[in-house]
Amino acid sequence: MALAERLTNLGTETAFAVSLAAADWASKGNRVYPFHLGDINLPTPGNIAEAMNRAIADGKTGYCPAAGIMPLREALAADVSSRRGLQWSPSQVVVQPGGKPVIGKFVQTVMNPGEGVLYPNPGYPIYESMIEYYGGVSLAYRYVQTDTGFAIDLDHLRSLITPSTRAIIYNNLQNPLGCESSPEEMQAIADIAIEHDLIVLADEAYFEMRYSGESHSIASLPGMQERTVLLYTFSKKFAMTGWRLGAAIAPQAIADSIAKLNTNDESCTTHFVQAAGVEGINGSQDGPKAILAELERRRDAAWGELHQIDGFVCPKPEATFYLFPKVTAVMERMGFTDVSEFATAALHQTGVSFCTRKHFGRPQPGEQDHFVRFAYSGLSVDDIHEGLSGLRRWIEAAS
Amino acid sequence: MALAERLTNLGTETAFAVSLAAADWASKGNRVYPFHLGDINLPTPGNIAEAMNRAIADGKTGYCPAAGIMPLREALAADVSSRRGLQWSPSQVVVQPGGKPVIGKFVQTVMNPGEGVLYPNPGYPIYESMIEYYGGVSLAYRYVQTDTGFAIDLDHLRSLITPSTRAIIYNNLQNPLGCESSPEEMQAIADIAIEHDLIVLADEAYFEMRYSGESHSIASLPGMQERTVLLYTFSKKFAMTGWRLGAAIAPQAIADSIAKLNTNDESCTTHFVQAAGVEGINGSQDGPKAILAELERRRDAAWGELHQIDGFVCPKPEATFYLFPKVTAVMERMGFTDVSEFATAALHQTGVSFCTRKHFGRPQPGEQDHFVRFAYSGLSVDDIHEGLSGLRRWIEAAS
Repeated sequence: MALAERLTNLGTETAFAVSLAAADWASKGNRVYPFHLGDINLPTPGNIAEAMNRAIADGKTGYCPAAGIMPLREALAADVSSRRGLQWSPSQVVVQPGGKPVIGKFVQTVMNPGEGVLYPNPGYPIYESMIEYYGGVSLAYRYVQTDTGFAIDLDHLRSLITPSTRAIIYNNLQNPLGCESSPEEMQAIADIAIEHDLIVLADEAYFEMRYSGESHSIASLPGMQERTVLLYTFSKKFAMTGWRLGAAIAPQAIADSIAKLNTNDESCTTHFVQAAGVEGINGSQDGPKAILAELERRRDAAWGELHQIDGFVCPKPEATFYLFPKVTAVMERMGFTDVSEFATAALHQTGVSFCTRKHFGRPQPGEQDHFVRFAYSGLSVDDIHEGLSGLRRWIEAAS
Repeated sequence: MALAERLTNLGTETAFAVSLAAADWASKGNRVYPFHLGDINLPTPGNIAEAMNRAIADGKTGYCPAAGIMPLREALAADVSSRRGLQWSPSQVVVQPGGKPVIGKFVQTVMNPGEGVLYPNPGYPIYESMIEYYGGVSLAYRYVQTDTGFAIDLDHLRSLITPSTRAIIYNNLQNPLGCESSPEEMQAIADIAIEHDLIVLADEAYFEMRYSGESHSIASLPGMQERTVLLYTFSKKFAMTGWRLGAAIAPQAIADSIAKLNTNDESCTTHFVQAAGVEGINGSQDGPKAILAELERRRDAAWGELHQIDGFVCPKPEATFYLFPKVTAVMERMGFTDVSEFATAALHQTGVSFCTRKHFGRPQPGEQDHFVRFAYSGLSVDDIHEGLSGLRRWIEAAS
């Protein structure tokens, strides 16, 4: 049965193959340390599930508006606005079943076939997939490693822009890099967006997932709010990845279009889950504070192990739950030329499972260095130490 | 800000305008009887919410596979197979956030731009919207009223088929008509599908919502299972419209494509809602039985009132929760030429709110008669009698 040709342009998250390999290794009786998953093994705060059950008891089990229930749109408008020093109205908030749906709906709303969209590389693979699936020209702008993290290669980014470039996807507090822009870099991106009249998808999934300092939104820069769509998610802050709750916050015309896509795609987001989200935003903040404190302990544990490995170059991120060390020197010392083989050997020798740079977009021309990604959100501090110290011993023994 | 041109082809459910008009009328202090909503004002059976809470307590709050949790895919494969006398494997079941997402994902998977897809008219408006949005040629095949219900105009349907026609959407146990195919009609549709090598979307949202007799699936006819995608939903049987849980059950290649779209569109369906669905399928059936019994009482009440109205032609459906009377004679007697004006007058004179034929697709060329749709799933038996007897008195007084 021949399927539609558009499917040949549909990408996926190849990281799921890592999950399968890890599960296969575990099924043979081996201990696996799952650093490949960007999931959180902490319970959702109890007050949120309680609010959900109150909503069910109150009959919130039927359809609700495609754009979301008004109490949640109001709560998000107030919260997101105040954290960014801006003002969005509830009508500009369109609830989604997770943060991810914002990506495809943004692309559908702003990009015609043949138009270009800039997106980060390495970066979350669904950006590239959705741009190409909807017939656009995917323009991967690159990040380069610095002494303290990673930076956007702005000259390279500028070189990609043509008159048909329509939008830029910008993921500050970045997955997989764990990095964030300097004020100068963020301003440069804003200047480019304004100069070339680009619409911006600001994927701010990790905006509140930081251990020191303060997050800044590109929407807050002059001239930017009116051209920026925010991706908001409940997944990280409230440990609600499996609940599927997020939102697009956008200029009104884009918000209206995304709401119309909601009507066609899924009718609405689960009604009582939205009521739970209101409690998350407006209720006690003890839960998210405890989640963040635990993630910081895990960050310290994971970084504490990895930065000791001779030949790993591992900046210490202040945000996200990812570490993205350069492993070129270690691979050379151990005789690996393919980072996938390095990852497979690490799994089989130490049980430590992780993604590699290959899972986050096509390598750039001339790219020589090798990187891997450790997600520390799904393991306890003890398991992080146990797994990564084993990895370290394996690497040191081979040197 | 110019948005993407594809959005000009995106339709919607215009019935939401009826909700707004009803809400506006109610906000002015008027009593409204909401016959416009295809929602159910009955609680979801308690065992289902209890299973959900056990899943949350058991940590099912993180991501799960894009195609759904295996216990739910297994439960659905067994249940749907046994009710249709067929055999689908769990790998052919792809869980969705509701039944509706199956429509767009089916269209994306089987139809290239420029190819034709047949769909019912009057019918659920999202079929037409998704076909046209993805660049297809929408081919509306018509239903005509008979003494006992409605029938597909098969000659008209055949006349629409060209060599580039790719698929047919078939909604037996039909919304808004409440009708179902005779064995001969279903066989004729199957013969046409086989003769013209059409892939079939069998929207079986109401397969188990019937008060007598037995539902039959077009997938069960010889040669059909391998070309049929089933749309399954938990919304009606379990009064779970707002939970957003459904599934596509499809030939393996289509199932795999739909699962890949899941990965891109929403990652997965809410994890613990899927666990609740397992309880719905495998747990006590007292809940769905009670829901169906109450809907039958409402059907009897609503039909009992409407069929008494002189000039309404209202067959009594054995399935769905819709009544779709012809109101031409009443409109003529009362001096209405536009069915929308008749509906607005009914709302303002009697508080009875309903959709019209216009909300279910473009009128066919030469269509003269007028129809309206009453959904009786959202009102108690007493409110049905109160609302519809008032409607009857208003119509009789004007005669």
